Amino acid sequence: MSSALLSLTECIAPQLAAVERVFHDELKSDLSSVDTLVKHVSRFRGKMLRPTLLLLAGKACGELTDAHVTLATVVEMVHMATLVHDDVLDEAELRRKGATINHLRGNEAAVLLGDYLISHSYHLCSSLDSQLASRTIARTTNQVCEGELLQIDNRNNLNLDEETYIKIIARKTAVLCATCCFLGAHQSGASEEVCRKLESYGMCLGTAFQIQDDILDIVGDTSIVGKTLGIDIDKGKLTLPAIHFLRHAPQEHRALLRALLSGRDADKAEKIRNLIVPSDSIAYAQQRAKELIEQAQEELQCLPDSEPRRVLETMAHFVIARPM
Amino acid sequence: MSSALLSLTECIAPQLAAVERVFHDELKSDLSSVDTLVKHVSRFRGKMLRPTLLLLAGKACGELTDAHVTLATVVEMVHMATLVHDDVLDEAELRRKGATINHLRGNEAAVLLGDYLISHSYHLCSSLDSQLASRTIARTTNQVCEGELLQIDNRNNLNLDEETYIKIIARKTAVLCATCCFLGAHQSGASEEVCRKLESYGMCLGTAFQIQDDILDIVGDTSIVGKTLGIDIDKGKLTLPAIHFLRHAPQEHRALLRALLSGRDADKAEKIRNLIVPSDSIAYAQQRAKELIEQAQEELQCLPDSEPRRVLETMAHFVIARPM
Repeated sequence: MSSALLSLTECIAPQLAAVERVFHDELKSDLSSVDTLVKHVSRFRGKMLRPTLLLLAGKACGELTDAHVTLATVVEMVHMATLVHDDVLDEAELRRKGATINHLRGNEAAVLLGDYLISHSYHLCSSLDSQLASRTIARTTNQVCEGELLQIDNRNNLNLDEETYIKIIARKTAVLCATCCFLGAHQSGASEEVCRKLESYGMCLGTAFQIQDDILDIVGDTSIVGKTLGIDIDKGKLTLPAIHFLRHAPQEHRALLRALLSGRDADKAEKIRNLIVPSDSIAYAQQRAKELIEQAQEELQCLPDSEPRRVLETMAHFVIARPM
Repeated sequence: MSSALLSLTECIAPQLAAVERVFHDELKSDLSSVDTLVKHVSRFRGKMLRPTLLLLAGKACGELTDAHVTLATVVEMVHMATLVHDDVLDEAELRRKGATINHLRGNEAAVLLGDYLISHSYHLCSSLDSQLASRTIARTTNQVCEGELLQIDNRNNLNLDEETYIKIIARKTAVLCATCCFLGAHQSGASEEVCRKLESYGMCLGTAFQIQDDILDIVGDTSIVGKTLGIDIDKGKLTLPAIHFLRHAPQEHRALLRALLSGRDADKAEKIRNLIVPSDSIAYAQQRAKELIEQAQEELQCLPDSEPRRVLETMAHFVIARPM
């Protein structure tokens, strides 16, 4: 977690530490080969954004319980499973500045490790008294899979429209953030209305987060962002700046981008960057992200003023203020 | 399902038909690209062994309910998810005499389709009132993953011993069969003792099933078995006949097998087959499978005589009488 975010989340520090413990306890195995592989997964541990959202939503609505810690661990495991399987999908060679599982042990190990994580996330979730969390988590992972499948299906589709793009990132990324906020609030006994507003906060925040990630993939600096960039382009994924560019840039620029996207230039990503960055398509995508963040902030108005609510506001702001 | 088995399962025919319906309803999506991929998965539909086990165990212990049908669908989805992900693992080009998902749409689609199936299996399971099934299914999938990981970890290990081999196939294959029988009985209100005996029946049957599968991979005829054979050898997986051979065949034969297993001969599988088939290692593996089937039959003694019980007995017999 970045140090700025770390100082912000002091109000949930004991629960975040507990998440780490539950995470490791749940994944322990009596088989040493499983333990070896699981240790490797720690490299994927990142900002703990999803447990943080769940715990803050819970704390903003009431008292945190052991069930919150369990759920926060579950969502982190789900997220890590998607990261591990994305490595199979993306063939990314760098993630979080470390070697990826599939690079070190082959695609097979990456598939199985992702399966192991997702299985344990459901296992942990099923330890709770109520089925509601299990059902919500499973419905969420259904949608994550759909988002990924829709994305593959639109690979190299130069006619991808903004609506479909938003549908993809909503399911692929935002729904899990929405579920975090919903479950955190629900577990604290919040009213249905408050739960739904927090869910909407998570949805807006997650969508803006993905748009910002997609902007970074085009304009970002690898050494700052800490993972391989230009992957979307390599894998034929059209994202918001390019979608906008292909509809609004001058005719000859559009033709140039189409040619670049269909071609196999070695420095394709660099050329695309040089074409899109000076246009107003980056600004357009940033504006979309900003509007979503404003809506996210708006949803928080249903909560009384409190430290966790203020942190949720700040986190939303951080999403669009990430370093390039 | 083979016609012999089909006539046997007449006593659960309405429930098996309901499993088909629930299966398709659960996997339906509002995204056409998801539906297209899901239709493709029907090729993986096979013998319905696991739903059959669950429903027969349930019927042998009491009345079948909607919950049995739900659970039977869940275990079939879990099984199909492992088949789809195994295709990524095995790079098999034939399965059930049809093209595999990974061959047609790339490894990425196979990973995601497997994830989609597993997610929907948990989703369906979480629709039941009690968490017991969710917890049992998730514990089972934890073990399936462990079995697969242990198997990868022992790839090309020519010193793999029988105990570790059994541990691998128990987790990879047998645990899910055991869970089917356990959940079927439990859902019918069977006593703890009966549930455990049926679980043991499933464990023995599943282990014998995998040993038989491994024997077929060496001695079988592709056109009868209906999937690519010799894969275990190609992928460096040692199975029971070879494990026995490497410890009990004449010294010079062992050396020959070690050389073949370490080498890259084009007709490696054929040469290994010609070496192992005349030895007594196939018979040894068949004997182990037979003993397990006898134990499985023994466990059924706790049940009163009934048609479903007799079918469970016959199914156990079928496992070791499959065509080569």
